[in-house]
Amino acid sequence: MSQTLDDLPTPALILDRAILRRNLKRMSDRLRQAGVSLRPHLKTAKSVQIGRMAVEGHDGRITVSTLAEARYFAQGGFKDIFYAVGIVPTKLPAVTELRRQGVNLRVVTDNIVVARAIADAARNGETFSVFIEIDSGGGRAGLPYPDLPGLVDIARVLHNAPGVELAGVMTHAGHSYHQSTIDGIAAVAEQERRAIVTAAEKIRAAGIPCPIVSGGSTPTAMHSRDFTGITEMRPGVYCFNDLDQEYIGSCASGDLALSVLASVIGHYPHRNQVLIDAGALALSKDISAQEFRPKVGYGTIVDPPARDMAVVACSQEHGFVQSDDPIPYGNLPIGSRVRILPNHACITAAAYDRYYVVDSELDGGRTVVDTYDRINGW
Amino acid sequence: MSQTLDDLPTPALILDRAILRRNLKRMSDRLRQAGVSLRPHLKTAKSVQIGRMAVEGHDGRITVSTLAEARYFAQGGFKDIFYAVGIVPTKLPAVTELRRQGVNLRVVTDNIVVARAIADAARNGETFSVFIEIDSGGGRAGLPYPDLPGLVDIARVLHNAPGVELAGVMTHAGHSYHQSTIDGIAAVAEQERRAIVTAAEKIRAAGIPCPIVSGGSTPTAMHSRDFTGITEMRPGVYCFNDLDQEYIGSCASGDLALSVLASVIGHYPHRNQVLIDAGALALSKDISAQEFRPKVGYGTIVDPPARDMAVVACSQEHGFVQSDDPIPYGNLPIGSRVRILPNHACITAAAYDRYYVVDSELDGGRTVVDTYDRINGW
Repeated sequence: MSQTLDDLPTPALILDRAILRRNLKRMSDRLRQAGVSLRPHLKTAKSVQIGRMAVEGHDGRITVSTLAEARYFAQGGFKDIFYAVGIVPTKLPAVTELRRQGVNLRVVTDNIVVARAIADAARNGETFSVFIEIDSGGGRAGLPYPDLPGLVDIARVLHNAPGVELAGVMTHAGHSYHQSTIDGIAAVAEQERRAIVTAAEKIRAAGIPCPIVSGGSTPTAMHSRDFTGITEMRPGVYCFNDLDQEYIGSCASGDLALSVLASVIGHYPHRNQVLIDAGALALSKDISAQEFRPKVGYGTIVDPPARDMAVVACSQEHGFVQSDDPIPYGNLPIGSRVRILPNHACITAAAYDRYYVVDSELDGGRTVVDTYDRINGW
Repeated sequence: MSQTLDDLPTPALILDRAILRRNLKRMSDRLRQAGVSLRPHLKTAKSVQIGRMAVEGHDGRITVSTLAEARYFAQGGFKDIFYAVGIVPTKLPAVTELRRQGVNLRVVTDNIVVARAIADAARNGETFSVFIEIDSGGGRAGLPYPDLPGLVDIARVLHNAPGVELAGVMTHAGHSYHQSTIDGIAAVAEQERRAIVTAAEKIRAAGIPCPIVSGGSTPTAMHSRDFTGITEMRPGVYCFNDLDQEYIGSCASGDLALSVLASVIGHYPHRNQVLIDAGALALSKDISAQEFRPKVGYGTIVDPPARDMAVVACSQEHGFVQSDDPIPYGNLPIGSRVRILPNHACITAAAYDRYYVVDSELDGGRTVVDTYDRINGW
């Protein structure tokens, strides 16, 4: 007998395959038309099934954020994997282990000490493929643009080391997440482009090949107006989208593929609230979307349709649902189910070991048509 | 060869057994001396090994926050388990499954519709043990004190149903987490006590037995000045403590048993920061302790000792460490390890599938002496 949303244990992570496919196709088409390779960042989905859908029609390169993901996707048959968090020497043995299995696991650094350690590690016959990280304005990792201090020195250490390939330059335009207009995002995208293209040109001017020029972020991949000089993009959250992406303007309100299924566990008319069994662990304590809409709390109710109702507070396993209007308790009896849209899909999904997959184009998304696994942890 | 902190993958969850034992003993002694049963809330530890240590010298009753925990601890031999999140009818089959195996899995409600559903479910020969939840001022679940609307009606439905036992009344004084003085906590503890003792008296006055009077919360269990009428307490986070508990005054700064081990992955002197490989997933986005010390960010560095250095921002796998003073980069070379104290131990721990156990009384806590498993998810 087929399972529906009413049969699942709660809380549970629900993925709408119809929306997922549309989101994947939109980005895939856009980058293909722009002549830019798609290297999806699978830190959001953490799922081989979704990874395979994401690279359809592309060459299969992907991005990951942990070594656990690298091992899991290698196991799933992926061959060109970029581990996009600054590498440290103690992690090189895990990298070589996968590379010896024929996986081109690429790493990144912005530090000459690490570059030298990689060069040293390659002396025993190991090989490495290394990106140099550029800070295009987001202020996370990377050599800050426009100064790019030490860029050519690091490139030279890597290029001159036998067994080491300078893969290219990369950046993540994380500051695009704080824009709220398409023009604002496009301006960040242009900053991003200039930073990595300039870095690549500096390296090439020193006679060193810099084949890949890699940008990132869903908003900039979606709304960039010029990819000139960029060879690949690494968007991640576009596969699911979330309230934060919606409020930024990176996606439309119908593009949110992920939700948390919860049960109503209590009625509190004296404070116009219901409690649900999805709290801090099931929703995460990410409040990113509150930057744009303070009342979003820890997520809003999408099913039954009531996006003015939000989870305004969380304890570990309790979510407090509230609204400016009187709560329609009759529509939300104890034990009934609601679905909540997450603020930040990547963080919310990390509490779950699987997706229950529904398809809104089949039956409004009531029947569970599949489950996809996830790789969590490190 | 024995493993040390330098050999572990990062990020990793580190538990200091010496501090854990002291924390467990302090609470155990205190409640034994007060003549109150200890029903530790294992939603924090989620570990059979720690659960067994927690109930040493007590009768073995425990509290859990998910059905996954209930199954896991039942498997581990625990026989009196209270699932302390409002039950809904769809979860009763999972409850009866464990009860048929001889586990006294008790549930809780504050709703007469649920009480009637439990009474109905017991008609087929099933048995249930049910608490009634009281809101002692925290404003989460429970019948609000002092009105306690419908209390005796719910008690009567449960008491009159064959196969159903009214276990007693319970509350969680979550508002104790927002105090910052011992006197403030003691005042909340007295509110908590009055609420549940009054509720029990009301039920007994109606001729219905109310054997268990169950209070909760680490701060109130630690700092209550009068347990009269309370039969058991359900503290949870006391086993580890965290920055939030320290700032409340619920524990001392040397009582924090849990930390996250991370690697330094980048130096950014132009903004006086280092990056570490513990971000939003490894630390959680819980900012509870910022209520008391805004600069605590997502946790402070305890090893090397530098509690003025905090993780001021997080992306998914990056933590931004900053200080008011110049960062001593020489002490924090790329690849070196730091340990971060969490704001809220329960939420941070949930990202990990195991504890790496060290013992500060043996060798300063450098050698891994054990690993304990954890049960996550639902």
